[in-house]
Amino acid sequence: MKMLYQGKAKSIYTTDTPNELLMKFNDDATAFNGEKHEQFEDKGRINKMLTCLIYPILEKRGVPTHFIEDVNETNVLVKAVDIVPIELVVRNVVAGSLAKRTGLEEGHELSKPLIEYYYKDDSLGDPIINEMHIAELKLATPEELREMNRQALIVNEVLLEILGEAKIRLIDFKLEFGRLQADPSVIVLADEISPDTCRFWDAETNEKMDKDRFRRDMGGMMDAYREVLNRVQKIAER
Amino acid sequence: MKMLYQGKAKSIYTTDTPNELLMKFNDDATAFNGEKHEQFEDKGRINKMLTCLIYPILEKRGVPTHFIEDVNETNVLVKAVDIVPIELVVRNVVAGSLAKRTGLEEGHELSKPLIEYYYKDDSLGDPIINEMHIAELKLATPEELREMNRQALIVNEVLLEILGEAKIRLIDFKLEFGRLQADPSVIVLADEISPDTCRFWDAETNEKMDKDRFRRDMGGMMDAYREVLNRVQKIAER
Repeated sequence: MKMLYQGKAKSIYTTDTPNELLMKFNDDATAFNGEKHEQFEDKGRINKMLTCLIYPILEKRGVPTHFIEDVNETNVLVKAVDIVPIELVVRNVVAGSLAKRTGLEEGHELSKPLIEYYYKDDSLGDPIINEMHIAELKLATPEELREMNRQALIVNEVLLEILGEAKIRLIDFKLEFGRLQADPSVIVLADEISPDTCRFWDAETNEKMDKDRFRRDMGGMMDAYREVLNRVQKIAER
Repeated sequence: MKMLYQGKAKSIYTTDTPNELLMKFNDDATAFNGEKHEQFEDKGRINKMLTCLIYPILEKRGVPTHFIEDVNETNVLVKAVDIVPIELVVRNVVAGSLAKRTGLEEGHELSKPLIEYYYKDDSLGDPIINEMHIAELKLATPEELREMNRQALIVNEVLLEILGEAKIRLIDFKLEFGRLQADPSVIVLADEISPDTCRFWDAETNEKMDKDRFRRDMGGMMDAYREVLNRVQKIAER
């Protein structure tokens, strides 16, 4: 097994099977473009478990993903993809940079899901971009972008359902997509869905259950992650 | 005459005629959201003259504007509008924030004109926004935005023609639009077109002939403004 890619919270390894890779969830948490960095025991395992619960449900609902199967505590088998360097953010409620950008208050319910694109480029600080920047930089074709948007809105619907039952508010989340190495004409959901990549608030108390606890030095991050996993597990296993 | 609005580089006054206002170009230059501020003698007059040369040409080419007529050294008569709080930036060549956002080099020719929207709100620092932010904030309807885009691309074509003949490269420019107070269903080009709101480079030397000379402390700003006016005057008067 050879490491192909070392990300901030995951690493990718080769396998013996063509077009199949091992994705390892690690315990690192980073924020502010890597300026803040800490380790949280058990984070990798929890995020992996959440991803293994959610991705098969998304597949059933018509969102193709890179997920193949669960392997062990922190590893999953995934289809090899070339990541589209666009982070697609779907928002249902105002938080974080959207509050700063628009002046709308954190917690304000949006009239409908709002999508933003960010250029996945650490050296530029992952800036927000629009469709014309994407075209000029040739990050994705208009057809690919439409497909990513379509899938993202289904992901939002599915997550809203699951989390609604789990009494968790889905504030916003970040998705990454990839082109299958076996067939680059196919765009699939890649990366992960976890409290690292989503904002989750407790539906009753509005308490944060996500990486904002780390970003904002609130403490109790791992308890919150475990609570998200417990609640989602109960829903998913029904 | 009562002052209705005091902007950074222009002031608006009432007149005796309903729905007609006086727009006064002043000599103030500001940059970085007002942090940098200086006076340049004769700037108001030059920018007013450029606007008076360009807006009638735009009208002839099918872009409705707020311009009614030239009044005196620094004043023009305009139709009363409610400004749409979106700054529309049209770019032909990479410069300024587009270089920072995309990593493309300043001077890189874009494959086609690129449009960006900025939320005209000083307290937020005029952040870049997308169509979904515009919809959520109700800054403009989708139809209004389409109309603004349509007009902006005609403005770009007309300016490219005029400036091309004047041996000036049109790098990018900022437009503001308004809804006519007499009929809010009509969107017209408002504001001004001048070296305050455009990036102009000499076609032969690539020397800057615009407000970047002030932003970047390069000196010689008024000479550059005068040169732009002289060259455009020769073309427009043909």
